[in-house]
Amino acid sequence: MSKLYFRFGAMNSGKSTALLQAAFNYEERGQYVLLAKPAVDYKGDRNIVSRLGVSREVDFLIRPEDNLRDLFTEQSAESESKTGQQVACLLLDETQFLTEAQVDQALEVAVLDRVPVLAYGIRTDFQTKAFPGSRRLLEIAHSLEELKTICRCGKKAMFNGRLVNGKFVFSGEQVAIDGDKVTYESLCPACYLAKKPA
Amino acid sequence: MSKLYFRFGAMNSGKSTALLQAAFNYEERGQYVLLAKPAVDYKGDRNIVSRLGVSREVDFLIRPEDNLRDLFTEQSAESESKTGQQVACLLLDETQFLTEAQVDQALEVAVLDRVPVLAYGIRTDFQTKAFPGSRRLLEIAHSLEELKTICRCGKKAMFNGRLVNGKFVFSGEQVAIDGDKVTYESLCPACYLAKKPA
Amino acid sequence: MSKLYFRFGAMNSGKSTALLQAAFNYEERGQYVLLAKPAVDYKGDRNIVSRLGVSREVDFLIRPEDNLRDLFTEQSAESESKTGQQVACLLLDETQFLTEAQVDQALEVAVLDRVPVLAYGIRTDFQTKAFPGSRRLLEIAHSLEELKTICRCGKKAMFNGRLVNGKFVFSGEQVAIDGDKVTYESLCPACYLAKKPA
Amino acid sequence: MSKLYFRFGAMNSGKSTALLQAAFNYEERGQYVLLAKPAVDYKGDRNIVSRLGVSREVDFLIRPEDNLRDLFTEQSAESESKTGQQVACLLLDETQFLTEAQVDQALEVAVLDRVPVLAYGIRTDFQTKAFPGSRRLLEIAHSLEELKTICRCGKKAMFNGRLVNGKFVFSGEQVAIDGDKVTYESLCPACYLAKKPA
Repeated sequence: MSKLYFRFGAMNSGKSTALLQAAFNYEERGQYVLLAKPAVDYKGDRNIVSRLGVSREVDFLIRPEDNLRDLFTEQSAESESKTGQQVACLLLDETQFLTEAQVDQALEVAVLDRVPVLAYGIRTDFQTKAFPGSRRLLEIAHSLEELKTICRCGKKAMFNGRLVNGKFVFSGEQVAIDGDKVTYESLCPACYLAKKPA
Repeated sequence: MSKLYFRFGAMNSGKSTALLQAAFNYEERGQYVLLAKPAVDYKGDRNIVSRLGVSREVDFLIRPEDNLRDLFTEQSAESESKTGQQVACLLLDETQFLTEAQVDQALEVAVLDRVPVLAYGIRTDFQTKAFPGSRRLLEIAHSLEELKTICRCGKKAMFNGRLVNGKFVFSGEQVAIDGDKVTYESLCPACYLAKKPA
Repeated sequence: MSKLYFRFGAMNSGKSTALLQAAFNYEERGQYVLLAKPAVDYKGDRNIVSRLGVSREVDFLIRPEDNLRDLFTEQSAESESKTGQQVACLLLDETQFLTEAQVDQALEVAVLDRVPVLAYGIRTDFQTKAFPGSRRLLEIAHSLEELKTICRCGKKAMFNGRLVNGKFVFSGEQVAIDGDKVTYESLCPACYLAKKPA
Repeated sequence: MSKLYFRFGAMNSGKSTALLQAAFNYEERGQYVLLAKPAVDYKGDRNIVSRLGVSREVDFLIRPEDNLRDLFTEQSAESESKTGQQVACLLLDETQFLTEAQVDQALEVAVLDRVPVLAYGIRTDFQTKAFPGSRRLLEIAHSLEELKTICRCGKKAMFNGRLVNGKFVFSGEQVAIDGDKVTYESLCPACYLAKKPA
């Protein structure tokens, strides 16, 4: 049996860097891995982009209607026919955007297909509510490991404040990609609560 | 700033023992703590009962309609008037049965009142879905720490299988207290999936 | 392959309680475990005594000259002939007093005999130096898990201050069992450094 | 009070990447950090080099005779006079090569100067013995966090096998920098024990 790992953190905690390093570690030892992410993440198209300056294309995208285990089975068969070697690990980025069913399928890949699944993602949205994928990962992952980053005050950041035109807002859609108008700041609970109207 | 800790585990992983040991550690160093649990836990009435044979009465019960922070403020004022010392820690058992709002209030006790809150509870129900209190704790606790127990197969148990008259069931109410008819068994994901109809 | 776990903490952090709870968890699921501790721990004779009030006799004592793996092999053969079942776990208390060689043998039990070994022990002595057993466990255990307790100031205690006739001392023998004259207090690094002459 | 963190791993587990990401996270939030490493690490001269392809010069080198806290005080005064801001974090690479005294000084930086210290390093040498710096960090760091990498067999690697001309050796000097003749391979305990003559 292998395990499903949820490595979660606030925004900008270095999740993509950690994922790319884990992939590198496997490959350096002559092992093959598959990288994937939900198609709903519009940020980097097909790439996993680390703010440290490293990036890499995923092997496949996961659309909301896909069965993740079926997709993995297909993709790993293809990889194995090319490399002559079993896939050693499935690495998933932006897993907060997986559906709940896809997280269950990721658990099946780990438990039934015996391939470890490393799922990286954001824990909660700007209202401190879990995203669908994160909620399910927090329920069923074998291992919950926090990737830490820091708040402006120097404490550990846990929450993601949303700013619209530079002002913190506490209502709105769950997903709003950061850009000109919308930005995010990772905050510790004390700074988050201080910003929030009572 | 203090922290909100969620120490979660499957059923029968020793959560109450760990809570009573933590309380003991504080008191042995001459510090005062408060123990509480949701009133909806019918099992031990006002007691926190460890299967190892230790038990202790809570200082207060939390009803679904209570504001946990207000309740804590009252109770700690009372304790401080008796002991002449500030309350050093709030220990909560069976926190899966807290409401989501009460978990937010527990975070406020930690962050705004600067009293550490140790919340012990079950992660998920017999269908592997988080209870309301656990769901919110998984979202906002500063620290997620697993209390481990083992499955019949020797692996780490994570899920709680429900048996009715000795047979595993996968539908029903979220809460059904164990007794003559209903029992529970902590299972690893592999054993849980093996029991579950496809 | 099974694992060697080192669950360490300052004095009075609840290590024996945690060990007895782990044993209980195994047995409640119909599995057999063995409990042992070094013979050099004079405190409880053949008993593992929790300050919460629970105690239990060990299955065997480990003398400094013993090969721990050989001893385990013997004892588990005996247990298996009585119970008809394999030993599911070896639980070791006061592992700071094991020799370095015995810790290597504990790793062999986990890795070669495929029986998980849970080793509970104190991390460092009153001069913040590891005991022989702890030093080796910190080097080779698969998993390092801290059992927390608190300092008089409310922070996490990590070090063990020694008092002789109520005064902190910073030189002397590594081992001095607490009694009338010698006592110990678990301290956080800040309080420990504050007590220590510059 | 701040904390001393020891983030340890086998060779090639991504320690330098993790350090550079942590520095990046601080700086992205407008905070200043200092990077340092022991002068005895000949590998990258004054650079911290990640195998992912990122590298960066340290702010200062630590020679064996240096007092790390004094050095930090000097360097942070200099940084603060330039930036007008306090140093938010001290990041140390290759900490296995610090002296024991320097690790004590790192603890003082965290506890007395209230600046968090992130120490990255290798846990043990090719004979599974801790390096001087690691030994002391395992004893006194507030937090022990493992950076994982994998063995050729797919399990977690913990030990570092040394090869001379492609053959595993189990005796020799503690430090031998990898190059043409000497190479290293991170191994899990089972694979390490299998290579080692009985």
